[in-house]
Amino acid sequence: MSDQADSDRAVGDRAVSGGQEPVWEAIARKRAIRRFAPRPLVPEHLERILQAGRHAGSSKNRQRWTFVVCRDRAHLRELAAVGPFAGHIAGAAVAIALVAPDPGSTTSGRSIQFDLGLAAENMMLAAWELGIGSVPATVYEPELARRLLGYPDDKSCEYLLSFGYPADPDDLTRPPKVGGRRPLDEVVRDERW
Amino acid sequence: MSDQADSDRAVGDRAVSGGQEPVWEAIARKRAIRRFAPRPLVPEHLERILQAGRHAGSSKNRQRWTFVVCRDRAHLRELAAVGPFAGHIAGAAVAIALVAPDPGSTTSGRSIQFDLGLAAENMMLAAWELGIGSVPATVYEPELARRLLGYPDDKSCEYLLSFGYPADPDDLTRPPKVGGRRPLDEVVRDERW
Repeated sequence: MSDQADSDRAVGDRAVSGGQEPVWEAIARKRAIRRFAPRPLVPEHLERILQAGRHAGSSKNRQRWTFVVCRDRAHLRELAAVGPFAGHIAGAAVAIALVAPDPGSTTSGRSIQFDLGLAAENMMLAAWELGIGSVPATVYEPELARRLLGYPDDKSCEYLLSFGYPADPDDLTRPPKVGGRRPLDEVVRDERW
Repeated sequence: MSDQADSDRAVGDRAVSGGQEPVWEAIARKRAIRRFAPRPLVPEHLERILQAGRHAGSSKNRQRWTFVVCRDRAHLRELAAVGPFAGHIAGAAVAIALVAPDPGSTTSGRSIQFDLGLAAENMMLAAWELGIGSVPATVYEPELARRLLGYPDDKSCEYLLSFGYPADPDDLTRPPKVGGRRPLDEVVRDERW
């Protein structure tokens, strides 16, 4: 398989179905957004993002997730300290904390993280369609996150997602960065490793 | 926040932007498909699915994934034995094995699974847009998966994704099952747990 997608050539590629592939376009164009306009999300937009997360599939349909919606600016500034790369939370319109059973407390722990990934991608793609940028933050300070979010001992939060209208609206239409992803030939194998 | 999405009322909801929200529609309508038509995927469709996975964001942009594409029918039948709920692989047009560094071998193991979830959702949504159904399978027999896929000791495969055109094309347009997801009120909290 050839690698055709390192530039917006792939986004502009109309070979498959003749020009209407908005899901693919969202997937190919979405980029991490870390700088947000200060205005809050339109309530319907926030609800849409949450609905998108809720609709994700999950292992045995267990839906082991709680989405804690944080909008208070002082709270967001505190949450920005949960990790070295979480500073974007301070300026987000909304941060959604993904709280789930502590993966260390169950043999199926790793499947929780996979399921949270499915839900997170749904939320970020649905947001993108509404002109809202997003980026995940990893929690490196779990006790701080627990204190700020108040979830019980058997739960954990390893990710928050920042959302907001981009500070620079051009971020929504900028072509994908060349070389931002490994080429297809490098990540795909045929039948066996 | 009210729970508006247990039926296709939500899918048909045009309140937000006036009728053109195909990403949301794909998210809300996509369902797990486990019975596939026997025909192979159009090569451009398979490439699109792989490109969608490759475009996913990942922790520090590490892209710690290899997508092993399995199409040989005998191989698919063998792979269907990797877990008690993996039988659908036998009839899939393609199974894509998500191979990544063994999460047990690294302190950042759980972030691998989250990243694989992001990539998997991209692939399944891109597929849906092309009329292709999908469903993940969890590996319960890691040594069998390793033998069948041939990846090295420091890698693991905890998920395969089955893809194919649905045996019943109505699956692509059927309204979402009522009650298939927990109501929004139950999964969302405000500011704190």
